[in-house]
Amino acid sequence: MQLTKQTDFAFRILLYLGQLPEGELANIKAICEFYGISQNHIAKVVVKLTKLGYLASVRGHGGGIRLAVQPAAINLASVIEDFETSLKPVNCDTPPCRIAASCQLKGLLFEATNAFMNTMRQRTLADILPKQISAASSLAVEIK
Amino acid sequence: MQLTKQTDFAFRILLYLGQLPEGELANIKAICEFYGISQNHIAKVVVKLTKLGYLASVRGHGGGIRLAVQPAAINLASVIEDFETSLKPVNCDTPPCRIAASCQLKGLLFEATNAFMNTMRQRTLADILPKQISAASSLAVEIK
Repeated sequence: MQLTKQTDFAFRILLYLGQLPEGELANIKAICEFYGISQNHIAKVVVKLTKLGYLASVRGHGGGIRLAVQPAAINLASVIEDFETSLKPVNCDTPPCRIAASCQLKGLLFEATNAFMNTMRQRTLADILPKQISAASSLAVEIK
Repeated sequence: MQLTKQTDFAFRILLYLGQLPEGELANIKAICEFYGISQNHIAKVVVKLTKLGYLASVRGHGGGIRLAVQPAAINLASVIEDFETSLKPVNCDTPPCRIAASCQLKGLLFEATNAFMNTMRQRTLADILPKQISAASSLAVEIK
């Protein structure tokens, strides 16, 4: 039961940028090198995060990307909803499952997915950034 | 956010067999034809379901498969645990994620997955088989 790579990368980019001092710009290459993920994969997710209003992009020499909003304004369920192709744990439609009309598993999986998403909906990016100075510093040092 | 095809097929096989009159045998070919899924895929899952004690298999002419236990004894969270390769929504280990040590997303995803699994754990196969006679009949007719 996995989230897509796109959602995973979106979270990693947001966590990276959320650690930086407010307003500081990062460049995509540094994020890719930090995580060891190809620039192509990260760039696609950065474009989408920017279009969706999570990131702001500054072009030109000395440019880069940063969070467009405060970490506390980034709801973690919204990130999943924006990046997952489907929130249905099984695909009843392609090809169409023959028992779809009478199957009660669908409804139960919907209920379970809601329980998952409700847990995520109670938190923002601010809640998953290291709280303690020591932890924050250690991640900041790793990022630098 | 999807369950694997293996888990999906395991549920479909259990739902099919759970609909049959107690003790009645089904054959794999009929299940494959009913769902339009290749025999190879279904056979692998049947072997695993049998090894795990969900199904009983009778060999020879007139043989087939049936549930080895009552539907009420088949917990739906256990089916997921038995068939999913991982319950972690993101893979922090391969390749190792550089922020894994200080990342708080992991713990939150674990909590959300628990909420999902707890919903499934409250139900058995008996709970997702059609309850009303009309619904049961309609599925039985489809299966025949």
